Formats: sequence, C-alpha cells, structure tokens
Amino acid sequence: MDNFTYHIEAQDGNARAGIFKTPHADIPTPIFMPVGTQATVKAVTPEQLQEIGASIILSNTYHLYLRPGEDLIQELGGLHRFMHWDGAILTDSGGFQVFSLGGLRKIDEDGVTFKSHIDGSTHRFTPERSIAIQEALGADIIMAFDECADPTDHDYNVRSMQRTHQWAERCLAAKTRPDQALFGIVQGGIYKDLREQSARFISSLDFPGHAIGGLSVGENKDEMLASIEVVNAILPENKPRYLMGVGTPYDLIEGIRRGVDMFDCVLPTRLARHSAAQTLSGRMNLMNAQYARDEHPIDEHCACYTCRNYSRAYLRHLIRAREMLGATLISIHNIHTLLHLTQTLRQAILAGTFEQTAAALLANIPASERNNA
Amino acid sequence: MDNFTYHIEAQDGNARAGIFKTPHADIPTPIFMPVGTQATVKAVTPEQLQEIGASIILSNTYHLYLRPGEDLIQELGGLHRFMHWDGAILTDSGGFQVFSLGGLRKIDEDGVTFKSHIDGSTHRFTPERSIAIQEALGADIIMAFDECADPTDHDYNVRSMQRTHQWAERCLAAKTRPDQALFGIVQGGIYKDLREQSARFISSLDFPGHAIGGLSVGENKDEMLASIEVVNAILPENKPRYLMGVGTPYDLIEGIRRGVDMFDCVLPTRLARHSAAQTLSGRMNLMNAQYARDEHPIDEHCACYTCRNYSRAYLRHLIRAREMLGATLISIHNIHTLLHLTQTLRQAILAGTFEQTAAALLANIPASERNNA
Repeated sequence: MDNFTYHIEAQDGNARAGIFKTPHADIPTPIFMPVGTQATVKAVTPEQLQEIGASIILSNTYHLYLRPGEDLIQELGGLHRFMHWDGAILTDSGGFQVFSLGGLRKIDEDGVTFKSHIDGSTHRFTPERSIAIQEALGADIIMAFDECADPTDHDYNVRSMQRTHQWAERCLAAKTRPDQALFGIVQGGIYKDLREQSARFISSLDFPGHAIGGLSVGENKDEMLASIEVVNAILPENKPRYLMGVGTPYDLIEGIRRGVDMFDCVLPTRLARHSAAQTLSGRMNLMNAQYARDEHPIDEHCACYTCRNYSRAYLRHLIRAREMLGATLISIHNIHTLLHLTQTLRQAILAGTFEQTAAALLANIPASERNNA
Repeated sequence: MDNFTYHIEAQDGNARAGIFKTPHADIPTPIFMPVGTQATVKAVTPEQLQEIGASIILSNTYHLYLRPGEDLIQELGGLHRFMHWDGAILTDSGGFQVFSLGGLRKIDEDGVTFKSHIDGSTHRFTPERSIAIQEALGADIIMAFDECADPTDHDYNVRSMQRTHQWAERCLAAKTRPDQALFGIVQGGIYKDLREQSARFISSLDFPGHAIGGLSVGENKDEMLASIEVVNAILPENKPRYLMGVGTPYDLIEGIRRGVDMFDCVLPTRLARHSAAQTLSGRMNLMNAQYARDEHPIDEHCACYTCRNYSRAYLRHLIRAREMLGATLISIHNIHTLLHLTQTLRQAILAGTFEQTAAALLANIPASERNNA
C-alpha cells in the first residue's frame, strides 16, 4: 500500500486538511469528487474538469459492468485511458446501484442476484466479483462491496451490517492489485449502537481509508450528522474518511466540520441538466423569466469558465432552445461551486479559521437547502 | 466598406486562396463556416471551435429573431458578446428558413408573412426588416433577403429571381452599419439563363461579396456544379464567393475547384448527433458493432482533439449510453475534417498543386458521398 499515504497538514476542531497520495494524483482534502457514472462526467470534458480543479472523479461499477463491460475497458487500457482522464478515479462497488433496484434484486449471504435495468438480463455480484470488476476497471481507489439498507429499520440493519462486515473481509481477501486502495464502508443506518459497532469492526480491518455509507438515502439531516459524529469518533484519524453520495453545500460544510475528507454526488450535474445553477447562496432556476435580459453571470464572485464568459440571459436562452451547451456550461459552474467550497474550507483549516468561515458560509445558505435535497 | 478587403494571394485554375478581412477576424479562404443556428454551434464551446481553427461561424436570423429576439441580443452587447465568440460571424437573412416553412408562409412583392414554428404566432419579414434584425445582431457579414425557390420550376424562378433582385436593392438601401459587409445572393434555380441574368444583375450592385443561393436543395450534383460554373464565370474575381448551405467533402472540393471561397453547412454537427463521423474517406456509423472493441481513433491521420485522445470504442460507448459528450466529441472531429480540408486545399492553391491534391482527395471519397447527401 506504499502508493497510498495520507498526510494531515492541519486540524481545526474536527475538520482536517490533508493530502491523500494516489498513483494518478495527490488529492488535497477535503475534496468534492464529481461523478462520471458511465465513464464520463455528463456533458463535461476531462480538460474542463481539470480547469475546474478536479483531481479525482467517481465512476460506477454497476453501470460500467453492464455497459460497455469491464473486460472491454481493461482490454482498452483501463478506465483512465478509456475515458482520457489522467487524474485519480474512485469506483464504487456496485452495491448501492444494485440494492436500489428494489424488486429486481435478491440478496443472500453470498451476494446478490439482479436484473439489468437496460435489458432485464440476470447478473450476480459477490464481494469477490465486485473486486474483480473494479480491478479490471483500474481505479486508484476501489470500494468494498456492501449492502446499503433502509437506514430506518433497526432489525434489518443488524443483519445487513453483519453481512456487510463479512463481505468487507472477503473483499480484502479477494484484492490483488497493489496500485489500488480498497476502502472499507461503515453501515448501520441511523442507529448509534450499530454505527459504533460497524465503525469499530471496519476500523479493525486495516483498510487504507474508510467510507460512511447508507446516509443521504432517506434519513433526515440531523440523523445524518449524528451518524457522522458517532462514526468519526471511532474511525482512525490517520486515514481518509469518505461520506458517500453526499453533496449539497450545507452537507459539505457540516461534514467537513465533523471530520469528513471526501464527498461525491451527482447533484451538481443533475441540477445543471434541469436548468438549476448551484451557488453558495442558493439555487437559481435559470428558466425563470426574471433572467431573460439579465446580463450578469450566474455568480459575480465565481471564477469559473461559465461565470467569466456567459450571462444568465444567454444560459436561459440555451436552456429554452434545448441546446446541449446549456447543460455543459451550468455543469461546469455547479461542479466548480462545490470544488471551490472544499478548497475554501481547506484554506480555512490551514489558517485555523474554519469555524468563522463555516459560519459565514452557512449564514448564506437558504433554509430550503439545509433540509433534505 | 474599409473594414472589408479581399486579397487574393494565389489562383490555381479557377481555385483561389485569399484573405477576407472583417472586423473580428482575417478569414483565410477557401473556408468552411460551422453553423451555430441558435447562437451556439451545437454541443461545442467557442474555445473548442477556436482550437479546431474556425475563424468564422454562421448563425440564423430566423431562429434568433424568434428566440431570444434580436433586441435582447442587441441589449446584451450583440451576438459576439452574447455567445462569447470573438471570431467573425455571418448571419443569413432569415429567408431560407422562412421559405422552408411551406404552408406556414405567404409571399408577396413586399415581403413574407409566416407563422413561428415554435408557437404558431404570425410574423413578417421584409428586406428592410431582415437588415434591421441583422444590424441588431451585429454579425461581420450579413446577407441580402432573398427568396429561395424550388430550383426546378423555371417559370416560378423567373418571377422569384426578379423579386430577389428588387429585394437586393432594398437591402442595400436599408443598410446603415459601416462595420458589416452585406453580401448579395444570386438565384435562378438550375437554369443557365436565369443564373447568368441573376449573376449579372447582382454583380452590378457593388456588394462587397456574393453568394450563390438556392442550391443543394433538391437539384442533383451535376446541376449544382453547372450552376456554380455559370455564376462564377460572371461574378467579379476580386470579391469573395460564398456557396450557401453546402458542406460535404465532395462539394467543398468541387466548389473550390470552380472558384468558390466560402461554405457553410449543418451537416458535420447533425451527423455527429446521429453517431456518424465524417472522414475524408467516407462516413462511419460509430454505433456499428464492429467498433465495439476498436482502440483506434476515428481517423489515425486526423489531428483533432477527439482523434488525439479517444478511441472508436469509447465514442461508441458514449453514443450507446446516450451521453452528451458523444455529440461534442464527434462534432469536434467532423467540423475539424471540413476545416482541415479547406486548409489543405488552400495550401495546395498556394503551392500550385490544386489539381493533384483535389484528385487524390476525390479518389478517396466513396460514391455514396458524391451523390446528393
């Protein structure tokens, strides 16, 4: 695991600023990871991502396994080369997508059998299969195969968590590539006892990094933040902590305040495809008539390519005319907003001013974006 | 008209290499102009267009008039600033789109009344109105308002051509901005007598440039090429000649051979959105299964961004996964193919080797792409 070292440069309260070294990039933390579900961050080129400052992106094992297939990607030189991305990549285990299929999947102790959302064909993931697929894809960071259960069913979470723990051990045993870091995932729903038990068990397995899974999927914000506190009090400090699938500005600030280092979310690109620009003082629906003749950029304080060069009026025109460039330009802005936020908080941690910076940022976030997104 | 000078650097047979100076760019001719119908070349950023080598793009008066409206664009600083394009722009007159509306428009001697394809509302274009709209948009080159008739109806073309000639005079009289060059348009369908008459009349009006309109809309290739020969024998040599709406590699080579300097066509971006890559040895449908594991770029001899960085297999994956980046990457390649072709032929004209170069290029074009596209 020499390829992967985590160095904490500064701590301010529970918030940490560090560098996680991976084969393709030194990742400054805290960091937001844009999501490239199908080996592309939707509507954005790798060069545009680099200009935004992205150093690591996430891609989805479930989607790439089904189409085009991990063997094809391996044959073409791995995911980095396939999608022309020289930075770091993290692949999820496929678990979250498979368990989201509802009636189309069946879980047993050994793994899960599911039907493809594309053509209904039957497939099976086990911890060993997930690791093999992720090794073929070749990301820098890969994830343990876990069950992502309804976080509000205590009895089910007991059984599910135990299965996730067994699967974590099987993932570690199955892993073969020294140039990939395998992260363990803490589960346990919204239950303090289960989260503690899971954090202790997963910490004991000596993963090079840890993730907090199963949040932002139905619980409320207070439950989410409480779970993060419980888990981070137990996870070792010298390894990166990744809060999976979370990505509003509010979530990032409150997560970082509680010691989270990494985040990912489809929200910035999904919002962009639905005409919504994310700023640190709230979302704007650029379809609104009020922007029709508005010569200002989305955010006058934003340094992104979109805000440097395009007016709200032009973006609204692109959206109304159903022009693809609209999704590209708003995606660039939205991703930039979250990456710039993590950079700002990183600087504040290094300067020892995290709480003041966080308080000022939180004061600008509208109430509607402090609740569940 | 001091802003606009056309300097011919070399002539080889009837083919010419020149520079047309406009306020925003010195345009090397022969040149292909990518089409940005709605103030955006579909799926491509201005920076990507610059990297491809585009110095002038075309935008559509009919579309911009209806949405977002020329007054809005003027208020926001004109089309260049609105769409963040620092190169030259040519706007068409709106005539072609309006006359393509079929039953939704009614022509009289003064102008044309039509219904919007967006909401069915009624509008009216006259030569004076078209010029006023184009002056508000602020392109470097604007076009006379003409009637684009069925090229194979002789009697109708007589009347239509006379109307186009009267409208050309009205456009010249209506024009006020010294920083825009107004091009006259030769009509006359596929008929030698009418084309000659039209070329003589339009030449007599002292436009700074001339266009050949009404071709590539139903006639066959031989008729198109014959019309170009008839017209270019009459048009003055010291002014640029623009063949409207034409853009296959075959058309460009044969047009340049006959003394055409400028071309535009939606084909490269439209093909891209339908999975087709244009190369100088033919079109490839990237959806085809034969490319599933193909690690080669679209064209190994192509220097475009897409061919430098992406495999056919990846592009096919993007298309199958309905990812927007697919249209972006193939559009970049297709536009590059046509611009590179005009650059290659320009160099050949300067070197005095046009015929050999054209013959070698034509030998690679499949028969299917020599017929009507």
